[in-house]
Amino acid sequence: MPDYKTPLRDIRFVHDELLGYPAHYQSFPEFKEVTPDLVQSILEQGAKFAEEVLAPLNRVGDREGCTWSEGGVVKTPTGFKEAYRQYVGSGWPGLAAPLAHGGQGLPESLALTLLEMIGSANWAWGMYPVLATGAKRTLDTHGTDEQKKVYLPKLVSGQWTGTMCLTEPHCGSDVGLLRTKAEPQADGGYRITGTKIFISSGEHDMAENIVHIVLARLPDAPAGTKGISLFIVPKFVPDAKGEVGRRNGVSCGSIEHKMGIHGSATCVLNFDGATGFLLGPPNKGLNCMFTFMNSARLGTAMQGLAHAEVAFQHATRYARERLQMRALSGAKAPDKPADPIIVHPDVRRMLLTAKAFAEGARMLIYFCAQQVDIADRGADEAQRTKAESLLALLTPIAKGFLTEVGVESAYLGMQVFGGHGYIAEWGMEQNLRDARISTMYEGTTGIQALDLLGRKVLGSQGQALMSFTKIVHKFCKANENNAAIKSLVEPLGLLNKEWGDLTMKVGMGALQNRDEAGAAAVDYLMYSGYVTLAYFWAAAADVAAAKLAAGTTEEGFYKAKLQTARFYFARIVPRTRSHAAAIQSGGGNLMEMNEADFLIGS
Amino acid sequence: MPDYKTPLRDIRFVHDELLGYPAHYQSFPEFKEVTPDLVQSILEQGAKFAEEVLAPLNRVGDREGCTWSEGGVVKTPTGFKEAYRQYVGSGWPGLAAPLAHGGQGLPESLALTLLEMIGSANWAWGMYPVLATGAKRTLDTHGTDEQKKVYLPKLVSGQWTGTMCLTEPHCGSDVGLLRTKAEPQADGGYRITGTKIFISSGEHDMAENIVHIVLARLPDAPAGTKGISLFIVPKFVPDAKGEVGRRNGVSCGSIEHKMGIHGSATCVLNFDGATGFLLGPPNKGLNCMFTFMNSARLGTAMQGLAHAEVAFQHATRYARERLQMRALSGAKAPDKPADPIIVHPDVRRMLLTAKAFAEGARMLIYFCAQQVDIADRGADEAQRTKAESLLALLTPIAKGFLTEVGVESAYLGMQVFGGHGYIAEWGMEQNLRDARISTMYEGTTGIQALDLLGRKVLGSQGQALMSFTKIVHKFCKANENNAAIKSLVEPLGLLNKEWGDLTMKVGMGALQNRDEAGAAAVDYLMYSGYVTLAYFWAAAADVAAAKLAAGTTEEGFYKAKLQTARFYFARIVPRTRSHAAAIQSGGGNLMEMNEADFLIGS
Repeated sequence: MPDYKTPLRDIRFVHDELLGYPAHYQSFPEFKEVTPDLVQSILEQGAKFAEEVLAPLNRVGDREGCTWSEGGVVKTPTGFKEAYRQYVGSGWPGLAAPLAHGGQGLPESLALTLLEMIGSANWAWGMYPVLATGAKRTLDTHGTDEQKKVYLPKLVSGQWTGTMCLTEPHCGSDVGLLRTKAEPQADGGYRITGTKIFISSGEHDMAENIVHIVLARLPDAPAGTKGISLFIVPKFVPDAKGEVGRRNGVSCGSIEHKMGIHGSATCVLNFDGATGFLLGPPNKGLNCMFTFMNSARLGTAMQGLAHAEVAFQHATRYARERLQMRALSGAKAPDKPADPIIVHPDVRRMLLTAKAFAEGARMLIYFCAQQVDIADRGADEAQRTKAESLLALLTPIAKGFLTEVGVESAYLGMQVFGGHGYIAEWGMEQNLRDARISTMYEGTTGIQALDLLGRKVLGSQGQALMSFTKIVHKFCKANENNAAIKSLVEPLGLLNKEWGDLTMKVGMGALQNRDEAGAAAVDYLMYSGYVTLAYFWAAAADVAAAKLAAGTTEEGFYKAKLQTARFYFARIVPRTRSHAAAIQSGGGNLMEMNEADFLIGS
Repeated sequence: MPDYKTPLRDIRFVHDELLGYPAHYQSFPEFKEVTPDLVQSILEQGAKFAEEVLAPLNRVGDREGCTWSEGGVVKTPTGFKEAYRQYVGSGWPGLAAPLAHGGQGLPESLALTLLEMIGSANWAWGMYPVLATGAKRTLDTHGTDEQKKVYLPKLVSGQWTGTMCLTEPHCGSDVGLLRTKAEPQADGGYRITGTKIFISSGEHDMAENIVHIVLARLPDAPAGTKGISLFIVPKFVPDAKGEVGRRNGVSCGSIEHKMGIHGSATCVLNFDGATGFLLGPPNKGLNCMFTFMNSARLGTAMQGLAHAEVAFQHATRYARERLQMRALSGAKAPDKPADPIIVHPDVRRMLLTAKAFAEGARMLIYFCAQQVDIADRGADEAQRTKAESLLALLTPIAKGFLTEVGVESAYLGMQVFGGHGYIAEWGMEQNLRDARISTMYEGTTGIQALDLLGRKVLGSQGQALMSFTKIVHKFCKANENNAAIKSLVEPLGLLNKEWGDLTMKVGMGALQNRDEAGAAAVDYLMYSGYVTLAYFWAAAADVAAAKLAAGTTEEGFYKAKLQTARFYFARIVPRTRSHAAAIQSGGGNLMEMNEADFLIGS
């Protein structure tokens, strides 16, 4: 398998040239020291760790997987534990954690950039720290001072990791059905009883303790989602000094045999009267868990980027080396037995698709990350509200759309290899297997689509959508006479308008029949994703064109940006036509068939 | 994993009601006894074998895989050998083989129908007989009487199996690069030396001998594809009585570790001065091998159908059982804790997509199978030529397009299961892993697209395309006043015309620059596939509407056909918009980037 190489230059382009991260950081009093030099040095160290420590373990993790043994002991693949030790030793877990709890207090957007590197190098390994980050964030937001004092320093240092315990055998998307019980005890704690499944990092050998963040029901809690509370259930209950104490009544009953991310332990956890502590207010557990879920959703969006980047890098390197057939327009490497396959237009189509999605995803995600910084720390409430509104809209798009195109990119990356793509040793089939979970966990694409269209867009009477279309509109207006990108700005303006029109139409239909929203949702999500990336590609082209006009020593880099933008508009944007048509076709074509008639031919 | 159930009713619909198989069979003197009753009885027996013997081995095959041991011995998974014994015992290998060599002389189209059942139940197992069928066909077409006498009876009985040895480490799509040598010997035979990779069924324990059909170069043969000859290289050289004789110099060096079809042994074969026999004329090997490849391509198209059918069946059953959330339009199963997920529009969208592709694929493939019968045995030369022309056009569409939508269907089938789809025990992830090879082997989608657009359509100045568009045009003309399907016939007529127009445009562009054909090819293939299935769905709707109008006891079945046709036109046909736009965007957006600039950001 070829090596992963961190695209530091492109990250710098997105951070500094496109999104103005240096000024963004300087706008926060607490980030005055976060200079471009500091950022560059951190990213370089992160890249080194990802490339040298994690990437070599990616195939090992896939081949060995995790192993479960009697008594609920889970062993991670060879090298995972040692890599985690190094990760902790270098202080990475605390990068964006509060100074008060031992963290380095750096921006969340920087931690997300670290996740890109870690995740691209070895997504399965990255699942352990990423879940810990979510737990940390949830505790920091909803915990009592006492709880923070006990748990945060250990999570920040990386001595302990965390999990998110939501799914049960009979309930995934429908959290309201959950049955895990929490019975209050005389000492103020709770006894937690129930079974949770699909718990990533639920049990492992990498850290001395695991802090489970668990959804459960109090006695006499209202039915459905309004009767769910959140609990801290540590694997080992901390003692008076906050160190690992007695073993708690939670155990790993088994681990799942999955299609991919074999190095990540996916656990069945049995809570058998385990000691738990209420986190946040009673019956408000789902609201509190959204802190975890939103962070996890942006993290999962990153998985779309990671697999697209890997597919793009490896397939491009292969396409430049593999000799097969002559270019249709005449030999390009006449001294060789055949031309490298990158001369073939269709191979380029596949590579450029993955490239446009990887780099497009990078722009969208780091734009979201910037909004996270502002929502978390913005001095001005109006600014925070605006950032939250943008995040509300863009998080389901990032999670839903980027994972779908991430899988497509992984698919195309394999395809470039021909039959070799199907063979384990090249690593491309692992990339697709690992990517495949991303559209299912943390809310399926269908769930993201309902969240986007129903909850966010229609739920706000279109206000959430406008938080973004206004930005696009402003960009188009500002560039209507910009000859260098006119051919992109014009179609972008039309799409932006159509986006609003389609929303209106679906909204009107949904007023008559709520199934109309469900029938449009996934096509609406994909449409929104293509338009969102179209904006970022036009914006990137604007930056690149300006650099080229001003003169640059990096002509190749900026020309490639412009060319990828043109490719995106010419070959990818037309997909909006089929989604727009499907959205407008209405729900009748989905709903008219009797349930019993689906399988009548079989 | 839920059981596979053979869709006998739908097969009957396609064979008898849509394509008129009974009259088709009666038109051949040798098939006078092939009555609907006989066909039904054969299909029922085939279904029983597929459901009861093969389907239960599907998961076993995936889990165990094949094992290679020192000395080149390959062991197939538990139960595979015994299933093959039963298959041979029931006479299945000879179904469509010539009576003269011990076969039953039944139509090729019937053997392809058997392949649907076998392949849907267990694609990996089906690889062994399917390769033997290709070898049989190639020997029957190009072998000498002596060669046929030695090899055909054993292949027809199933005592021996066969392989197709084409790929070498440095050459896949580019067969012209192959290096395997064939040196003539004094006895009229040849010494074959070289290495072949990716040889399916290249070594196994299911049959007493394996007949390799091998591409190699004679000494002083012209370079490239014009210097390739075809050879028979048996694992054991037949003795004077035609029985298994001495072990030949061909051995299995290793087997590949693949993403899926683990039960199918994918072998590296080392030919070390092995004895071979020339098959067909010298230096015409590639032409002869096309007999094998065309048969293999239609067989691989069937893989698209198989995985789509499995995805559809299993996901539909799951969607009717899994309770999760309430319908947006109000509870549908108020007595249960939640509604079955089939009430949700987006779940239906995924199921209907897989259904439309599975049933659409069935129509296209059995139409092709009918043309194979005619091309093989038609009494009238004009009729044979017409069938060959249709097959030339439709084979790359069937192989290229149906495998792509087969993979998509397998993807959606998993998606319906949510996180459970990722877990091995449900079988849905295996279905996707097994499906994934179909767009790569037997010529990638890119290769099929070049074959379709370059060789077939433009190579015949559009004549090959017209062999099919004329049929569509006639259908549209005949149904222009058919109120029941007017809403389908109108868009179909427009698409059919646009298909020709797009072809003309690409053809003109390719005259200027041949890369234009390569740049349009895959989008052209996909466009062609969507239009081709649109014709079959309109034709199916026509049959169904007529049955409903005439009165039927199977109202649900025919209504579901009409509804699926409407779904296909409303939700799938719009994809032609994005492909048409991509085709017309030209090659510039793919070719302008410098090779060195692709990876410049990394």
